[in-house]
Amino acid sequence: VSLSSPSSGRSGRRPGPTQSRDAIAAAAREQFAEVGYDRATFRAIASAAGVDPALVVHFFGSKESLFREVMALPPAVGEAIAALATGPPETVGRRVAEILVGLIDNPSSRALVVGRIRSAASQPHAAELVRETVTRDLQRLAAAITDDRPATRAVLVGSHLVGIAFARHVVLVEPLAAMSTAEVVDLVAPTFQRFLAGPLD
Amino acid sequence: VSLSSPSSGRSGRRPGPTQSRDAIAAAAREQFAEVGYDRATFRAIASAAGVDPALVVHFFGSKESLFREVMALPPAVGEAIAALATGPPETVGRRVAEILVGLIDNPSSRALVVGRIRSAASQPHAAELVRETVTRDLQRLAAAITDDRPATRAVLVGSHLVGIAFARHVVLVEPLAAMSTAEVVDLVAPTFQRFLAGPLD
Repeated sequence: VSLSSPSSGRSGRRPGPTQSRDAIAAAAREQFAEVGYDRATFRAIASAAGVDPALVVHFFGSKESLFREVMALPPAVGEAIAALATGPPETVGRRVAEILVGLIDNPSSRALVVGRIRSAASQPHAAELVRETVTRDLQRLAAAITDDRPATRAVLVGSHLVGIAFARHVVLVEPLAAMSTAEVVDLVAPTFQRFLAGPLD
Repeated sequence: VSLSSPSSGRSGRRPGPTQSRDAIAAAAREQFAEVGYDRATFRAIASAAGVDPALVVHFFGSKESLFREVMALPPAVGEAIAALATGPPETVGRRVAEILVGLIDNPSSRALVVGRIRSAASQPHAAELVRETVTRDLQRLAAAITDDRPATRAVLVGSHLVGIAFARHVVLVEPLAAMSTAEVVDLVAPTFQRFLAGPLD
């Protein structure tokens, strides 16, 4: 799942409005991921994007609306999770692990996930974003597989993923922080399998 | 595991230094849990404890040293986890779940855990506290049970616990947030069992 837009590369020309907007969005994601919502400032975001702070306000208004807009998950993530329901249930754990660990590890989406987690710790609207992702996409997948407590299954997968992302990218606990994406997928796939398709207790 | 001290109750007399210190520590834990390290202030902590802000500085020095001191896990937690190694390995998942879910749910320790998680999102020394707990106590337990990647097993248990605490007490994802402690123990015990004593992949 890629978040980068073709217009965000450097062209040598003076950046047009779309390029500036993309550059601000990318810089804002990095800021939220690095320091969390509370410490992120328009000034630092503008500086990283190479624009005037007034342009950030012009494009995005308030810090809250900037956060909501740039931290939205691309629709492709929800679609990829929804598509998992059509495959064999006995491999759903590995398939969902590949998408979700990819999401937290991929450079194009990692800032989005880490930024949400860091910000959710102190910001109710960031918490709301984390909550709606977990409940919506994963719950729909779980419900397609079983009638037995799909909402509970979805929140187990989501909370384990958040815990892994927290240990791997925020707190940097070894050996998890140094593992490859493939190793993490191998490690969490059996757990996700049980959470989604196995007996719960 | 209880964190309250016998001297922290209200006696009707003017509070002595130990009572003030305990009241400040309890108020600081609540502040860190509610708003995280960045937003916690000496003024708000002093106000909640009913003392002058200067007294917070007098007892604890800087915000960082206040955090380190009041957010330290009581030694009883590490001892309880260590004691699990002497029981039967086939029930270690449930036994560790009872201690750890109790830790995140018990009113006397919840503020400690939630405050660490909220603060770790933006504060390196809070992250350090989370990291050392996970690696030290759980790793020792895992190593007593198996030679197969004990450090990986410990971080899986720790990160799942952090994910559960995050979903249950920070982001408030249902149905997890509304469950009883016993229901959460039932839900995570089989996962902790596999993480600590089962095959990993």
